[in-house]
Amino acid sequence: MARTDITIDEMTAFCKRKGIVYPTSEIYGSMAGFWDFGPYGVEISNNLKQQWWKYHVQEREDIVGIDGAIIAHPKVWEASGHVGCFADLMLTCSKCKGKVRADTFIEDSLKIAADGMKSEEINDVVNKNGLKCPTCKGVFEEVKDFNLMFTTNVGPVVDEKSKAYLRPETAQLIFSNFRLVFDNARLKLPFGIAQIGKSFRNEISPRNFLFRCREFEQLEIEYFIHPDKGNECPFMDEILDHEAFIYSADMQENEKPAEKMKIKDAIEKGIMTTKWHAYWLAKEHKWFVLMGADPDNFRLRQHLSKEKSHYAVDTWDLEYKFPFGYKELLGIANRSDFDLQQHIKHSKKDLSIFDEESKSKVVPHVVAEPSLGLGRAFLVFMFDAYDDDKDRGNVVLHLNPRLAPFKAAVLPLVNKEKIPDVARKIFTSLNNLFPVIYDKSGSIGRRYARNDELGTPYCITVDFESIDNHDVTIRDRDSTEQKRIKIDELEETIRKLVIGKITFKDLK
Amino acid sequence: MARTDITIDEMTAFCKRKGIVYPTSEIYGSMAGFWDFGPYGVEISNNLKQQWWKYHVQEREDIVGIDGAIIAHPKVWEASGHVGCFADLMLTCSKCKGKVRADTFIEDSLKIAADGMKSEEINDVVNKNGLKCPTCKGVFEEVKDFNLMFTTNVGPVVDEKSKAYLRPETAQLIFSNFRLVFDNARLKLPFGIAQIGKSFRNEISPRNFLFRCREFEQLEIEYFIHPDKGNECPFMDEILDHEAFIYSADMQENEKPAEKMKIKDAIEKGIMTTKWHAYWLAKEHKWFVLMGADPDNFRLRQHLSKEKSHYAVDTWDLEYKFPFGYKELLGIANRSDFDLQQHIKHSKKDLSIFDEESKSKVVPHVVAEPSLGLGRAFLVFMFDAYDDDKDRGNVVLHLNPRLAPFKAAVLPLVNKEKIPDVARKIFTSLNNLFPVIYDKSGSIGRRYARNDELGTPYCITVDFESIDNHDVTIRDRDSTEQKRIKIDELEETIRKLVIGKITFKDLK
Repeated sequence: MARTDITIDEMTAFCKRKGIVYPTSEIYGSMAGFWDFGPYGVEISNNLKQQWWKYHVQEREDIVGIDGAIIAHPKVWEASGHVGCFADLMLTCSKCKGKVRADTFIEDSLKIAADGMKSEEINDVVNKNGLKCPTCKGVFEEVKDFNLMFTTNVGPVVDEKSKAYLRPETAQLIFSNFRLVFDNARLKLPFGIAQIGKSFRNEISPRNFLFRCREFEQLEIEYFIHPDKGNECPFMDEILDHEAFIYSADMQENEKPAEKMKIKDAIEKGIMTTKWHAYWLAKEHKWFVLMGADPDNFRLRQHLSKEKSHYAVDTWDLEYKFPFGYKELLGIANRSDFDLQQHIKHSKKDLSIFDEESKSKVVPHVVAEPSLGLGRAFLVFMFDAYDDDKDRGNVVLHLNPRLAPFKAAVLPLVNKEKIPDVARKIFTSLNNLFPVIYDKSGSIGRRYARNDELGTPYCITVDFESIDNHDVTIRDRDSTEQKRIKIDELEETIRKLVIGKITFKDLK
Repeated sequence: MARTDITIDEMTAFCKRKGIVYPTSEIYGSMAGFWDFGPYGVEISNNLKQQWWKYHVQEREDIVGIDGAIIAHPKVWEASGHVGCFADLMLTCSKCKGKVRADTFIEDSLKIAADGMKSEEINDVVNKNGLKCPTCKGVFEEVKDFNLMFTTNVGPVVDEKSKAYLRPETAQLIFSNFRLVFDNARLKLPFGIAQIGKSFRNEISPRNFLFRCREFEQLEIEYFIHPDKGNECPFMDEILDHEAFIYSADMQENEKPAEKMKIKDAIEKGIMTTKWHAYWLAKEHKWFVLMGADPDNFRLRQHLSKEKSHYAVDTWDLEYKFPFGYKELLGIANRSDFDLQQHIKHSKKDLSIFDEESKSKVVPHVVAEPSLGLGRAFLVFMFDAYDDDKDRGNVVLHLNPRLAPFKAAVLPLVNKEKIPDVARKIFTSLNNLFPVIYDKSGSIGRRYARNDELGTPYCITVDFESIDNHDVTIRDRDSTEQKRIKIDELEETIRKLVIGKITFKDLK
């Protein structure tokens, strides 16, 4: 199983050609930053969300979920600071009035890092380097703030009072429901609240396919701790021996490369000072690996001080090596009690909770918010799975069976005698348990190739021997190895293979 | 198992109290028509969506799914007719400028049906009956159209050119992706394309909790057939013997009650003339019953001619008996080729497909669009499950195990000796398969009651005997019956109970 490196544009084309992802409204010329999942993509995306939820919510006793509205009360976004300062810096051409996002335009034009640059710095860089409008070569005006929230109006009257926002993040729905959830769900500190849902940002320059979109889905947790217990994580044993590439602010500033090490060594050496950050970074990295990604394509990178968000005390990113460089998958930020305090102030409601252990009322701190973009996770698994296998002469998608659109394909060798009957019976019994494809047309080789490209992990061929011996051939997508297996053991075998209880090698 | 009738307001209060559904942004006074699912509601809602997808997409070979963007190209909504005429009639007070939705206001004020009334008729009714503004008793202006689409702007400039809409229905994403899906998914007529996702309508009077919201989720299929084969449904055998209350336009016009009959009898008597409508109505009714709803709380009602939408040739609704009357759950409408033709005209793209059977290019007809509102389905299952059991002294939610937030609860009788160890081991092994709750606090009776209220179908109690005999007590939520079962058979037994392969009575 080898990853074949392809560009983001090649991946975009592959996804369209195979019914995985389409540009939205393609018949009308599409729209930058909006995408539709096609028949196979929607299955991968749903599997990914379900697996994320299972790992982060259902298998844990300290995290519960919610699903909040996309349009919340506008005061939520005033309290959170999004109305005041959720903005990108934008350069406008004085001649054609064309607009570009300042930091990415500078990065593309000058090949220097511009993330986090302030207005004056940007004006300086633009002037010193004589940067001009990419469309008409006109001179830029002074850089301006551009609020990224989409606005709309709720109710029959369009005015300032009816103005509302499409949520730019799922996090604030967790904060605004915080007390209700705490009161209902029998939680005790430390605990988390999770949510999966769409968010919207009016990006000036959407780019890189699913990487930076205007409409995107978030998989998010806000994790709350007692303010006095910032460094007491009860789950450290799970991750101390976990290995990852670590890239501290110090290494970056001294131009040293990232170092692969165990989490416990990073803590001992003082590279990671917050146990909770170490825990969540490792836990998230482990999830990607569990779902089939290559561990060495990731690194844990500490933010430089100038990159920090308006609320964050310290932030680490889990990054993945995309074809266009290492980029953020999710940030582990310490938001302290910034958000809850803002909502207490703006709503004038008591959002403190009673902590049984310390017998006192506290406003908890958010020690981490493992917030993942679905589109980015989707790309990770696609890039790591994509293999243009020259020996086979077709692409193989080495998706983890849990993520694959179909768990198996049932292939009748020929469509005569009792073969289709037996194959249909197998298909029906399996398809009742998990999604299976019935594929009867074309040569067996062609059908293997088609299922390789869809990422179907197991092909079950029904042949003449199947009639007399009550067995079938099962072919492993990754190795192309084939084994004979009894029909009455098939259901249980495939089920165990899919959930990872056994591997193909374990089969006789 | 008996349903206890409660009002929609009582259900709203119950859902909030139990962490199932909250008014969004409650700390800021909430927002009419927007709701958040709480920790238990999000699990029920996810289960419902997954079960719908399994039944309608994954278990069928003729339907594939997509997941399209909420903000599509504005031309999609011009082509579909939504920009031109997706409007409700609105009455504005000439004095205070307060606004009400005309039809529902007339219905509430005069207790007459007003759905489908045209402008002139409404002005007439208002004048004749002297209807006044409910707030200030001022006189109404002439009734006006009010477009229900939420608008926003995409990109850095706010003007007519950047105007975009939040989708008011998922259907158009299916039509705009129609050719891409057909080309990729190896479909042949008849076939369907399904989608689950949020839609937005700026309702003038959102009401009845999750029944009519401004932000809501749709579970939708567009089902395409060859235009010459409008009455050839290959799946009729599945539903001919299915029984349901049928309420034809004729029965309604002659003030006769709905009649319970088999689908085949409705067809033979000429009450249902389109086989595809009969098929989809029965199929959807069967889904609700499979998921635990009471079949007799539904009826299949034909639209009266004045109710028809701008595209529909004939429409039937699946209705449910809500506390506020029979209301639509989903409509089975024949949209013919209205939408595809509109998109062909506006996009100037060829959306016809090649039909292998007739060896000709055709623009298929939509014979049915089983389009269900998630919130309405959610209410159906909640109302049918809700049982204020006076004998037990607590509410019991008789949710089908597939929909219940937790499939089982593990209860250590006491927290001493080896009991917690054995209970934790059972919990961990089960929770790896499906969501399970570990509940150790309070008396066993209190814990049974708590799990009854969450709809947990099976409580597993670990007691002193469990240590020596390696068995546990399993209690059935609906009957309160208890049985002893070996620990090593537990996993398989609960799994089979949950998917309905066995019932509690089958256990020894």
